[in-house]
Amino acid sequence: MRASQFFFSTLRDTPSDAEVISHQLMLRAGLIRRLASGLYTWMPLGLRVLQKVENIVREEMNASHALELKMPVTQPAELWQESGRYQAYGPELLRFKDRHDRPFVLGPTHEEVITDIARETLKSYKQLPVNFYQIQTKFRDEIRPRFGVMRSREFLMKDAYSFHTTRESLAETYQVMYDTYSRIFTRLGLNFRAVQADTGSIGGFASHEFHVLADSGEDDIVFSNLSSFAANIEKAEAISTGERPAASVALTLVDTPNQKTIDEVSQFLNVTKDKTVKTLIVHGIADETGKHTFVALALRGDHTLNDIKAEKIDEVASPLTFASDEEIKALGLSIGYIGVHGLPIPLFVDRAAAVLADFVAGANAENQHATGVNWDRDAQITRIVDIRNVVEGDPSPDGQGTLTIKRGIEVGHIFQLGQKYSEALNCKVLGEDGKPLVVTMGCYGIGVTRVVAAAIEQNYDDSGILWPQAIAPFTVAIVAMNPAKSPRAVAASEELYAELTALGLDVLLDDRNERPGVKFADLELIGIPHRVVIGERGLDAGTFEYRGRRDSEARELTKDELFALLKA
Amino acid sequence: MRASQFFFSTLRDTPSDAEVISHQLMLRAGLIRRLASGLYTWMPLGLRVLQKVENIVREEMNASHALELKMPVTQPAELWQESGRYQAYGPELLRFKDRHDRPFVLGPTHEEVITDIARETLKSYKQLPVNFYQIQTKFRDEIRPRFGVMRSREFLMKDAYSFHTTRESLAETYQVMYDTYSRIFTRLGLNFRAVQADTGSIGGFASHEFHVLADSGEDDIVFSNLSSFAANIEKAEAISTGERPAASVALTLVDTPNQKTIDEVSQFLNVTKDKTVKTLIVHGIADETGKHTFVALALRGDHTLNDIKAEKIDEVASPLTFASDEEIKALGLSIGYIGVHGLPIPLFVDRAAAVLADFVAGANAENQHATGVNWDRDAQITRIVDIRNVVEGDPSPDGQGTLTIKRGIEVGHIFQLGQKYSEALNCKVLGEDGKPLVVTMGCYGIGVTRVVAAAIEQNYDDSGILWPQAIAPFTVAIVAMNPAKSPRAVAASEELYAELTALGLDVLLDDRNERPGVKFADLELIGIPHRVVIGERGLDAGTFEYRGRRDSEARELTKDELFALLKA
Repeated sequence: MRASQFFFSTLRDTPSDAEVISHQLMLRAGLIRRLASGLYTWMPLGLRVLQKVENIVREEMNASHALELKMPVTQPAELWQESGRYQAYGPELLRFKDRHDRPFVLGPTHEEVITDIARETLKSYKQLPVNFYQIQTKFRDEIRPRFGVMRSREFLMKDAYSFHTTRESLAETYQVMYDTYSRIFTRLGLNFRAVQADTGSIGGFASHEFHVLADSGEDDIVFSNLSSFAANIEKAEAISTGERPAASVALTLVDTPNQKTIDEVSQFLNVTKDKTVKTLIVHGIADETGKHTFVALALRGDHTLNDIKAEKIDEVASPLTFASDEEIKALGLSIGYIGVHGLPIPLFVDRAAAVLADFVAGANAENQHATGVNWDRDAQITRIVDIRNVVEGDPSPDGQGTLTIKRGIEVGHIFQLGQKYSEALNCKVLGEDGKPLVVTMGCYGIGVTRVVAAAIEQNYDDSGILWPQAIAPFTVAIVAMNPAKSPRAVAASEELYAELTALGLDVLLDDRNERPGVKFADLELIGIPHRVVIGERGLDAGTFEYRGRRDSEARELTKDELFALLKA
Repeated sequence: MRASQFFFSTLRDTPSDAEVISHQLMLRAGLIRRLASGLYTWMPLGLRVLQKVENIVREEMNASHALELKMPVTQPAELWQESGRYQAYGPELLRFKDRHDRPFVLGPTHEEVITDIARETLKSYKQLPVNFYQIQTKFRDEIRPRFGVMRSREFLMKDAYSFHTTRESLAETYQVMYDTYSRIFTRLGLNFRAVQADTGSIGGFASHEFHVLADSGEDDIVFSNLSSFAANIEKAEAISTGERPAASVALTLVDTPNQKTIDEVSQFLNVTKDKTVKTLIVHGIADETGKHTFVALALRGDHTLNDIKAEKIDEVASPLTFASDEEIKALGLSIGYIGVHGLPIPLFVDRAAAVLADFVAGANAENQHATGVNWDRDAQITRIVDIRNVVEGDPSPDGQGTLTIKRGIEVGHIFQLGQKYSEALNCKVLGEDGKPLVVTMGCYGIGVTRVVAAAIEQNYDDSGILWPQAIAPFTVAIVAMNPAKSPRAVAASEELYAELTALGLDVLLDDRNERPGVKFADLELIGIPHRVVIGERGLDAGTFEYRGRRDSEARELTKDELFALLKA
């Protein structure tokens, strides 16, 4: 591509409303333009990247015998009513009516549509397993779209759905997709991790997320330093360690006026936070009369509650709902001074809190805390549970090594769905025994637009983007120095452009009528991996000035050296 | 592709709700599936065709230096309010509100969005001309979606928009797009015609439509038998022929009780229809007081009114609106007996009607017609106009030859837009003289999904589809006869499959566990251009049984002959 025939719209300044680096750089490099909140146009430069990601995803899905199709963006609401998600999905599901007043949705995902197709076209076990996928526009009406294409409303997603007669067959295809995703993210040149994820309220059999590692990631992902264990923080089990020591001091009430938080109390009483216990009151499930009940959750003061784990306690309402100030007062408790002894409600204690002795907790009385609290003697545990987030250094749940926590950006998710949708939509095939059976499903997603932003979050410097080669908008840029005065440099740049293009490389010949400094700054901002500058001096010496985008300085290469490097 | 790893869902019977052959065959061959009215899923087989069309369009647009980008499907209503189309577009524009109650539309086209991008990114004449395009999902809320993907609600379109400082530059890019479209439809293997089209109410400078010729087409397109003249019927000028003869008989009123239509009157009075004149009453423009006026339009009895032409008469209201029965009576006229003499309103007479003498017309009196009517003597012409549709045999407007009329399916449209959108949205760049100037625009569309249906309307037989090779889902199908009993045939089919795939051909190895008759019927229905059958007899003789999809019978070819044929 000649730059003079392309369209660049780089910005020197960082747009003020862009919070994260990928959003800033995508706007500055002119990859995208904002149309409205959460809606972006992919400009020619950005679309080249997006299409490269799309093609790698397509090639690998095809290689794994998934079959591409394309479902409509607009979907009839009836199917969502059949699955029950028309009510359950919440306001992210954009609903509208057509000119005949019939209700539709803009598809945030396509389980309902694919299951409808499957129930009409799949007749026999002989047709299974089959794995359909599409790369299609999705719409989610985010309450607060942000981070550019990282959390936009309209985005491109690869979503696949597989159909099976048995869970074993599902597990096989699931493994194929796990491997396919690993190949995809490897080819994309990204540093990623596959981690176990919670199967959540859908209740499938297994689930993995694929995360691109980046400090700016919104998710915490957890690894063992010795084994292959990896999970997201929602899923990672916190193992109980050690035995509870015997009580050694008496329970004492102390005045702690206006000391409500763990930080305040531990400082005021001069104890470390890991010797304190905090108590949270949440909604329990309704009783026989339909009235709210309440339960208490106790954690070590330095630990944080894991909502997903808490929701799994049978007695706890889902979604997790904290008691309001009024509800807490109605229970006779004092906000900021809730403790574990004398509680009028069931008490679920985290494993780490349950092995403490002689600890500090609220006194269940205004402006007072208790020291020397001990379980059994002073407070009754309803059940010991795992409800905290693991922290760095915790033992790995597989018993091997300790845990490390890193930040990740979720770019893929694979899920053994089971029969949630096939049951709701009555999707059956004839089994080998001639009897109809409800099919078992898997689903597999990749956020194609999000991959582009995640790649930048992982690969940038002060000058701009550092694209992995496989998805760079152009692989090589060629710049002739002083084109107006050096016809030789122009001719040599044209020749090199033709030769490298013939090799199948994506070459940008920067023939714009701009100063070298402007061109270099643009090429660095845009993140082209290889830059070749052609000038009189090099032509005399028979060399090209080469600089890799990650190199600290340029070097002179002979033509053979240059070609060897670019072919590699 | 191995058929056993692909997904076929052919139907033996024609779906009852499919009216046109392309819709019937697309459903029967399993190319598409209906999700809801006007919404279709492209199944794996159909998507292969759609993607081949898409790729040819993309390659040719890129070769013409158009720059691909991708705008959102959802668009803020504000932009449509700025252009004035939020009100003007009518109910095909699907409007909805997001969760924050902000109004949006599902894009039926993207002039507003691209002009918004242009006004923000284009600064100087130096950046022009530039031609942006996308291949993107569109939505039009058709009142009665039908003919499958031919007139669906959600569809794939290639839309391009060019920006210029001068009309000359626009005309140059317009010609480039004309040539590009010609290359695209030629590569697609379609019999097509580019025809002049009306620029309509937008009032651009020039417009051409690209039609695929097919008897089932919804549009009439008109050619000269001697010159390159070609236009759609809306645009084709009807040339006046001959001089008006002198009046030779007196005007006579005759009783024609209950004879109201031209057919009835010409039969009753025993005159040919081309010796009669029909008079239509339509709304004129409002007078100074804002009240409706009315005007009369007179045409030869055997001719039909061309609405587009009639709307161009300054005194006629646009859109063309026929007077109601009440309005006609209020003018003192008799429905079915309206004539040209003594009319109380202006009378615009078509060129062909204006050269008649001694003709028959309504008498403007109940149950009476007039014979021997003559212009000037009996009826006053306000102005002679061109308001009829041309008919087969009319002289070509360029003076060369006569006109032929064929049916076409519109698959492309190029349009010199001018400044309609750039003025409305204030899209300016700095000109060479340093002063801001409003840019001039062109737009260029191809209905990508519609091309697939149009290709079928032009290419089918009793057994199914006859794909042009460039867009066939597979180019060659290989079938081994008696695979269970002939390992030799299976081995030879595998070998041929590998060899042809290595040549870059899209090969389908039909290894399904089905009877040959089922396979052959499917392959014909699906329309694969080349079929090779491998059996014991051929293996003994060293030949392959080959049949082209359009051939009436199979023939035996040696391997060399087969490869030569498939490579050609």
